Amino acid sequence: MPRPRSDQLVHAWCLAQTEGVGPIAWRRLLSRFGSAEAALAALPRLARAGGRDTPPAIPTAAEAERELDRLAKLGARLLVVDESGYPPLLAMLDDAPPVIAVQGDAALLSARSVAMVGGRNASANGQRMAENLAAGLARTVVVVSGLARGIDAAAHTGALATGRTVAVVAGGLDLAYPPEHAALQQRIAELGAIVAEAPLGTAPQARHFPRRNRIIAGLSLGVVVVEAALRSGSLITARIAQEIGREVFAVPGSPTDPRSRGANDLLRQGAILTETAEDVLDNLPLHPMCASSLDQGVTAPPGLAEPRPELADDSPDLPRARSQVLDLLSPSPTPVDDVVRRCQFSPAAVMVVLLELELAGRLEMLPGNRVVLLTDEARISE
Amino acid sequence: MPRPRSDQLVHAWCLAQTEGVGPIAWRRLLSRFGSAEAALAALPRLARAGGRDTPPAIPTAAEAERELDRLAKLGARLLVVDESGYPPLLAMLDDAPPVIAVQGDAALLSARSVAMVGGRNASANGQRMAENLAAGLARTVVVVSGLARGIDAAAHTGALATGRTVAVVAGGLDLAYPPEHAALQQRIAELGAIVAEAPLGTAPQARHFPRRNRIIAGLSLGVVVVEAALRSGSLITARIAQEIGREVFAVPGSPTDPRSRGANDLLRQGAILTETAEDVLDNLPLHPMCASSLDQGVTAPPGLAEPRPELADDSPDLPRARSQVLDLLSPSPTPVDDVVRRCQFSPAAVMVVLLELELAGRLEMLPGNRVVLLTDEARISE
Repeated sequence: MPRPRSDQLVHAWCLAQTEGVGPIAWRRLLSRFGSAEAALAALPRLARAGGRDTPPAIPTAAEAERELDRLAKLGARLLVVDESGYPPLLAMLDDAPPVIAVQGDAALLSARSVAMVGGRNASANGQRMAENLAAGLARTVVVVSGLARGIDAAAHTGALATGRTVAVVAGGLDLAYPPEHAALQQRIAELGAIVAEAPLGTAPQARHFPRRNRIIAGLSLGVVVVEAALRSGSLITARIAQEIGREVFAVPGSPTDPRSRGANDLLRQGAILTETAEDVLDNLPLHPMCASSLDQGVTAPPGLAEPRPELADDSPDLPRARSQVLDLLSPSPTPVDDVVRRCQFSPAAVMVVLLELELAGRLEMLPGNRVVLLTDEARISE
Repeated sequence: MPRPRSDQLVHAWCLAQTEGVGPIAWRRLLSRFGSAEAALAALPRLARAGGRDTPPAIPTAAEAERELDRLAKLGARLLVVDESGYPPLLAMLDDAPPVIAVQGDAALLSARSVAMVGGRNASANGQRMAENLAAGLARTVVVVSGLARGIDAAAHTGALATGRTVAVVAGGLDLAYPPEHAALQQRIAELGAIVAEAPLGTAPQARHFPRRNRIIAGLSLGVVVVEAALRSGSLITARIAQEIGREVFAVPGSPTDPRSRGANDLLRQGAILTETAEDVLDNLPLHPMCASSLDQGVTAPPGLAEPRPELADDSPDLPRARSQVLDLLSPSPTPVDDVVRRCQFSPAAVMVVLLELELAGRLEMLPGNRVVLLTDEARISE
């Protein structure tokens, strides 16, 4: 007998999986309409107002029920942002995933955590280093990583002795990726936790990895980079961590090994030099530090939580506002504050227009209260 | 036919080689008596006043002449502190060597220089790193090192292509040490320069190495540490460099190799992370930075350059001053300013007493205007 579903969970999941609804728009819609259900009802009208010809594809409640059933069979559940159980550090991100699926011990996601990332082609020394560091860290904190080859796998393996490890996967929870880590993934699901933003059955693709990296950084008070070449994904995770006010740690390596150049570069930029677990634990902040993108959260602008009269979707000013806002945007990220300052409309009116345009697939809302106009090429490649 | 000697050079060398006259006392004596010759004449009386039973052993002028002859045959010459030709950065040290012997191109000692130091048991990678770094640095600056096994030898070898390298040896110029570097030492003498503070024929002993390290740091605007274990001589050189306001650079290494722990520790303390010669050259200061020990030079206290009436060696107050100063000293380094503040005598009287006590072998003047009382054990082990 299936356990009773919360309608709210079904609607939250449907809204998150709707075409064109990014994590920032998800939160804004919830804030504007009060519930996911009301937002879903308004979506077709908003997208049309933004210039979209056909209504966005919204999953049905039946699809959501099927997903919830399959998750339950895997011992997994959904957590919704800004609701209880959702990891509080992750919720601090402007673009926190609206809904995540967690298999295993979901409480680990809200515990004091450190991420460990590094190269897939790590040296034997680097993997041993990562495994030992993770084992030391997992005595007192949770070790978060991405289940990739090399450093990620070593980090999870080292931390598994205490079970304090969380693997964030790029695709669906139910897929073993990379295939050779199927057994490791299974053990983490049993002793620790697996987290996924993508629905079940989603095969990981290139575009999923930056979002996976953001979740890894977002769950953690700090990120430890063990072996990372210049221009590697690990450096992107470190940069995200720094942007969202998390501490960055790096294990140094010989300049004669290109696999250490990225970690050394982080040290040059002020990362904390790490040789032992104590180096991390002694420097791990109690809370995330202030970072610019945290100060400009989507929920911040006062007066926007409830629609003001002038915000009515049939306001005669909206068409003019749309055209002015569109003129002010470009394919380079633009601060929303700049758009508001340079047009004749209220911040609230601008927000409505931006939301409509995102739902119509014409722009993307970025963390740090910025927006970027999607060019035809970008829209086609989506 | 021997070339005519400067009497001043002979006296400067004799005073520097006199038992109990350290580099700080040497400068103070010259400042107080106006010339090395006058200081030599006053020495027996000063030492007796300080409580010494037998007069200090002073080399004869004939011994000095013999040293100068032998140096000339080696293509070497003496440089005297605070006189022309003496390297200006080295002269900034409170305890700059009063006299150094230089074989080869003495002008290199006054050029823009970087020291490179590291472990004697360096890895092949570390030695290659040092050689390449030194080759890159020697295109524009002089590379100073200590001719030791491992990193030192690699640094000299890398820099020899341009000849811009200076080797500071712990013993006499004429000894090949370590023996297997005899050929390298010969090439540096021909293309670069060799520096020694000890007289010819002096076999290097443990107590010479800290002074050698101080000269290496003192000649240079910065010190690069390539591979250095914790508690190694290279870390001492780096600490000296930092104390005297020179930049410290360190090449990172894997924490799994103990030979890199010292360099990594320096990075943790703020050393500049170094992977290429550009990392050093881009961060090399134009001048030494201010450092506390440089602000309290022995020549600093005004009014001490010339003896004041109250300073006369037969002043009736001196015996009481001696006893008060002795009571205030201890085997831990004490700032001279503290001694002056806590006794009833003028700064000048305190200076006279300290000089006498050093000449009597009862205390040692340290850089940074500090003094330390020598215990019986310390005096016996001298």
